[in-house]
Amino acid sequence: MHFVKGHGTENDFVILPDPDAALTLTPAQVARICDRRAGIGADGVLRVVRTKLVPEVADQAGDAEWFMDYRNSDGSVAEMCGNGTRVFARYLVEAGLAAPGSLNLATRAGVRRVSLGATGDVRVDMGKPRVYGTSRATVAGREYPGLHVSMGNPHLACVIGEPVDGLDLSVAPGYDASVYPEGVNVEFVAPLAEPRSVAMRVFERGSGETRSCGTGTVAAVVAAAHAAGEVSGEWRVAVPGGDLVVTLDEETSFLTGPAVLVADGEIRDSLFA
Amino acid sequence: MHFVKGHGTENDFVILPDPDAALTLTPAQVARICDRRAGIGADGVLRVVRTKLVPEVADQAGDAEWFMDYRNSDGSVAEMCGNGTRVFARYLVEAGLAAPGSLNLATRAGVRRVSLGATGDVRVDMGKPRVYGTSRATVAGREYPGLHVSMGNPHLACVIGEPVDGLDLSVAPGYDASVYPEGVNVEFVAPLAEPRSVAMRVFERGSGETRSCGTGTVAAVVAAAHAAGEVSGEWRVAVPGGDLVVTLDEETSFLTGPAVLVADGEIRDSLFA
Repeated sequence: MHFVKGHGTENDFVILPDPDAALTLTPAQVARICDRRAGIGADGVLRVVRTKLVPEVADQAGDAEWFMDYRNSDGSVAEMCGNGTRVFARYLVEAGLAAPGSLNLATRAGVRRVSLGATGDVRVDMGKPRVYGTSRATVAGREYPGLHVSMGNPHLACVIGEPVDGLDLSVAPGYDASVYPEGVNVEFVAPLAEPRSVAMRVFERGSGETRSCGTGTVAAVVAAAHAAGEVSGEWRVAVPGGDLVVTLDEETSFLTGPAVLVADGEIRDSLFA
Repeated sequence: MHFVKGHGTENDFVILPDPDAALTLTPAQVARICDRRAGIGADGVLRVVRTKLVPEVADQAGDAEWFMDYRNSDGSVAEMCGNGTRVFARYLVEAGLAAPGSLNLATRAGVRRVSLGATGDVRVDMGKPRVYGTSRATVAGREYPGLHVSMGNPHLACVIGEPVDGLDLSVAPGYDASVYPEGVNVEFVAPLAEPRSVAMRVFERGSGETRSCGTGTVAAVVAAAHAAGEVSGEWRVAVPGGDLVVTLDEETSFLTGPAVLVADGEIRDSLFA
């Protein structure tokens, strides 16, 4: 089984090229591949397959030639991953499966438009954020007001008046389960000295604190812009895994940042023994 | 840069074949390779190099053809790693660089004798454990008496009267710094139902709790045998990463267990950019 390892702001993936849909990939195999000590190690798997060979996706994929079959590290299927689409697109271009420029990717959450050059950053259209009022997160007994933002998945983005470094996110922040019956991803956002620039830390439901979260980065900027009385513009977001840029306009949002492929090779059968 | 990834009871390594000593491997490169999100991810790097090409080792290496140049995940040099020697030897045999049977490996701590078949477990001679009396570890305000064992590195192995699962090892156990001025690896050892069978958890200095520790496994059995009034015999040790066997005799100790190679490939230059 051929693989490529890559990451976007330290959200890391094992890419499995499978253009002809020849792979049978069980949840147990995915979990084993993502195991950080017994396997290769990653936050998730990106299977690369031609859209037309995946009947349940092909209908709504338009001209998107490639389908990003994203799996979580526990083996379960997931709809979308913003950092994942950037790494996926970088792989397609480096492997010669797509030309630099703009391309449409099929995902389980619909088609995502991605733009990239032969090298450098990758930009993905993340769709229009939806704001559903306010809520509160609790950390170490202290309440932080925040904005309820949906990026397809639920977020609670809290702009705070202190550096994000000091927060204890080793345990899940508290939240209002009547607002978020399916759980929530919680962002803490601190404005930095430069205009339209923030630091963010994120606690992802089911994962704990992570080095980066694409949808969370956009939700964080929506909250920061809201607090600043703005609705559009370009923002820099410093996450633990690196720097990202979020652009808001009336219609949609864009996430721009690095996508790096660091190694490739073959997975041995002994991984699954 | 060619690499192989492997593990022994989930103590994992990136193996870098470098038979002709052509690689210049900086601490920063090692740390980057071992980074679990931006790199490949591992507990350490095992560079595989011909002993005769490493002057500072060749003098004391006897007939050991291969030198295990072991580096910690932070890039620093380390003397020895029991699980590492087993994975290193499995690589030599799988790559056709050594025949199955017994072979001597050069390490910075001296020559280690390893025995293995074409497949299956690998056994390494860990040398004679040295016992220096008793000391105490503290976890969550509670004291646990233990045995001070040296395996070249310092251990405090505590046989406890409760299951090891319940201990909170998220913070370092307390110890007597006058006994261990350089710090200590602390093992907690609980006898299981079968004779000569124990469960172990280990807190490694500088690393925190790990899935397995070769020298710690031997120290744990020395303490368990001491508590049982025995000085030799074969013991099974269940660690979080799997099962190991430790054999004690009058002269030395042996560690036997799995060593699995799970993938191989090429590291791209972009990893170091």
